[in-house]
Amino acid sequence: MNKPLNTPSDAFLSGLRDLLGPKGVVESDDSARFLEEPRGQYHGHAALIARPADTGQVAEIVRRAAIERVGVVPYGGGTGLVGGQLLEPAAGPPPIVLSLERMKNVRDVSVADAALTVEAGVTVKAAQEAAEGAGLLFPLSYGSEGTAQIGGALATNAGGVQVLRYGNTRDLVLGLEAVMPDGTVLNGLKTLRKDNTGFDIRHLLIGSEGALGVVTAATLRLFAQPKRRETAFLKLAEHRVAPTALRALQAVVGEQVTAFELMSETGLGFVMEKIEGARMPLADRSGWHALVEVSGGDGLRDALETALGEAFEQGWVVDAVLAESEAQRQELWRLREEMPIANRMIGAVCSHDVSVPISKLCDFIDAADAALAAAFPGLRVNCFGHLGDGNLHYNAFPPAGEERAAWRDRAQAISRIVHDQTHAFGGSFSAEHGVGRLKPGDLERYGDPAKVAAIRSIKAALDPLGIMNPGAVVAIGEAPK
Amino acid sequence: MNKPLNTPSDAFLSGLRDLLGPKGVVESDDSARFLEEPRGQYHGHAALIARPADTGQVAEIVRRAAIERVGVVPYGGGTGLVGGQLLEPAAGPPPIVLSLERMKNVRDVSVADAALTVEAGVTVKAAQEAAEGAGLLFPLSYGSEGTAQIGGALATNAGGVQVLRYGNTRDLVLGLEAVMPDGTVLNGLKTLRKDNTGFDIRHLLIGSEGALGVVTAATLRLFAQPKRRETAFLKLAEHRVAPTALRALQAVVGEQVTAFELMSETGLGFVMEKIEGARMPLADRSGWHALVEVSGGDGLRDALETALGEAFEQGWVVDAVLAESEAQRQELWRLREEMPIANRMIGAVCSHDVSVPISKLCDFIDAADAALAAAFPGLRVNCFGHLGDGNLHYNAFPPAGEERAAWRDRAQAISRIVHDQTHAFGGSFSAEHGVGRLKPGDLERYGDPAKVAAIRSIKAALDPLGIMNPGAVVAIGEAPK
Repeated sequence: MNKPLNTPSDAFLSGLRDLLGPKGVVESDDSARFLEEPRGQYHGHAALIARPADTGQVAEIVRRAAIERVGVVPYGGGTGLVGGQLLEPAAGPPPIVLSLERMKNVRDVSVADAALTVEAGVTVKAAQEAAEGAGLLFPLSYGSEGTAQIGGALATNAGGVQVLRYGNTRDLVLGLEAVMPDGTVLNGLKTLRKDNTGFDIRHLLIGSEGALGVVTAATLRLFAQPKRRETAFLKLAEHRVAPTALRALQAVVGEQVTAFELMSETGLGFVMEKIEGARMPLADRSGWHALVEVSGGDGLRDALETALGEAFEQGWVVDAVLAESEAQRQELWRLREEMPIANRMIGAVCSHDVSVPISKLCDFIDAADAALAAAFPGLRVNCFGHLGDGNLHYNAFPPAGEERAAWRDRAQAISRIVHDQTHAFGGSFSAEHGVGRLKPGDLERYGDPAKVAAIRSIKAALDPLGIMNPGAVVAIGEAPK
Repeated sequence: MNKPLNTPSDAFLSGLRDLLGPKGVVESDDSARFLEEPRGQYHGHAALIARPADTGQVAEIVRRAAIERVGVVPYGGGTGLVGGQLLEPAAGPPPIVLSLERMKNVRDVSVADAALTVEAGVTVKAAQEAAEGAGLLFPLSYGSEGTAQIGGALATNAGGVQVLRYGNTRDLVLGLEAVMPDGTVLNGLKTLRKDNTGFDIRHLLIGSEGALGVVTAATLRLFAQPKRRETAFLKLAEHRVAPTALRALQAVVGEQVTAFELMSETGLGFVMEKIEGARMPLADRSGWHALVEVSGGDGLRDALETALGEAFEQGWVVDAVLAESEAQRQELWRLREEMPIANRMIGAVCSHDVSVPISKLCDFIDAADAALAAAFPGLRVNCFGHLGDGNLHYNAFPPAGEERAAWRDRAQAISRIVHDQTHAFGGSFSAEHGVGRLKPGDLERYGDPAKVAAIRSIKAALDPLGIMNPGAVVAIGEAPK
């Protein structure tokens, strides 16, 4: 059991103010944006919100925090959904919140190395643009990409809509620079494709949610820009055919399948109800739909049409539209991309970010639906997401006409049912959002004991004082001495 | 500083014999193959060579070894080149050598999940065949694939000839099962594409060379079989154009470039001299050549010809042959694949497995050649390898007519020059072969200090007794208490 962390002393805070200068500290009238999260579900506190200008300042802040045994909470774009960026007052003394937003230099773009080096405060969108400026592609893409920062994307190993083809964030990282819990700087900004020199500390830091160090910069993998993008919106005969249709499409176009997104009648209904200007591209909204994108070289349109022809013949697909223009493509994607916004307007009781083996995905959906219906009749479910990754956002809404507030005390029981079902199907209670401060209990409950033991050992070894993002991933007080 | 390990007692060894039965122990007349490596450069010793039948037996061996504080050396196909599989008598008391060769079940192949679960003793070749049997591709491929085992491939994060397209071994692993240094079993055989549930212990174990645990099984990622493979052998105007030609080819066919291998006049000369039946497919062997392969869907032949046309126009390529049959393709690949064998027949003073940023690869070659020529006039160099990965095998040979033995005492000085140059260009002293027992000193010398410190902390945290593959990656006695 760690000794508890300290409340920063006035001397410590005034030392940090001297170090960082006026631009390096967020004054109280601007602090709210660092202490709330998008949906208003977490409220953090802070002794000081630091905005360091460079890696040296980050290192010095952490070094001093280690001496004083003060918590440090790294803060990226603030778009995380599991409370990883916010320490609530009940969870411990006020920490230093460490915003990376001033560190937004693009340090290097190399066409020959197909690599981009950016600081942690660069947004995902800006990284995409820097790659595009060099004629290449940085494929990480998700709804909040205009706000989310690279540092946070690495810390959470963010997923998104092109994982099927290009992998998760960790698969896009060649090297990183980070400040370790003792304030030393890990200098690992490499463009190397192969580097087997000891345990992979890079992959350990990626996805560690700030609990093992602060990412300050990263070298990212770039790809050739696809010459063509072909997008189709499909009405499926039933959800059960989706995995088969995906593999059949891959048999034709290989790894050029970029997205295979599943949407239900309920979800499309929410979008039609709440999103102005959204319209169904097919006559019938019932049942299950898929949004499919392939990208690559010439000839993809023909290949997609061939695959679709087979899917119709096999009876997997009963209606389809192919985007004939970029505008139409955007319109199809809008149905998927606005779904989280429509969900928010409807008001979920609770949401889940689960993954299951693709072979069991439909069994999972049926089993979870049945278990919820038995326990809470009338509850509405919007299950949608990245079928190609086996990643579903399985969100529960109160029965039509009922208030969300009235259901709040049942949220935990609902989540337990969904996560129990996920676990029973060999799935994960956190596919792409992370553990944060929402799910350390789930990690204890569902995690493999040997893995949980290794996580605790590593936390204790690399952050023996427990100052790095206290309470994220590993609950406070859980790391053995 | 750890307490030294113990020599296994007779009681301990006879307990293991009882546990494993006659088939589970290698008798002395068959033990030589576990105590030598391919080139005869390392000679190991062992108190007992265990051949456990299943994961439970592996766990029990490690659990007992931890109690007795006895070293455990995991042993796969024995093809490693850095001594990771062999503990020399001078390095410590005789360990238990743990051969996984009896664990060769293919536990599951799932087309819907595009995943293959195999035990550690399955050879890389057998894993390829299991995937092929299901109509899918397991793309890991390298010279020793018929002997090398999946456990060793994971432990060393093996590279090979298709990394450019499909990544290193770690990129092909969805889940793993491993025995941790205390004998507990990590049950992580998942097919999930997204699973952000705490620090990534999977990636920590992959590439840890047995120093943090023993991989007993893995779930591997499979891909659609490419419909076409197109292969070309190119004479380059000079080595310097190679990276440009690679990126230009990727701009046409995207990530479907599967291999881009560089070969020098010296290397091709060795193959012509030593390999029976090898013949040059082009008239002129001088200068630099590249072997290029693209694989994927229809239309790739046209795309490759288009790209080659541009390469001729730009003057990057001065002669070329495209394989017109599978037999011709094999013949072209033979030039590359037989090169390590030809090298062995010529007899290298020392070999290097380095990677550098692709943008600096040719500068590195020139600088290393110049530095070696200045220090050791007449030394011959065969520099060849996976240009697309920035990975060069840079091997030094005695001047023509001179004996290798006479140069042996200069090997260390030669390696220092090559590794110093690698480091100066931001490269890695171990691209795909690992650290093993050959390069812990290089890790100390060239490794980032914060990374080396993290490696030591993690070794001490997960293997506090230092029993797992003692002396591999982290030299014995180096892990802090």
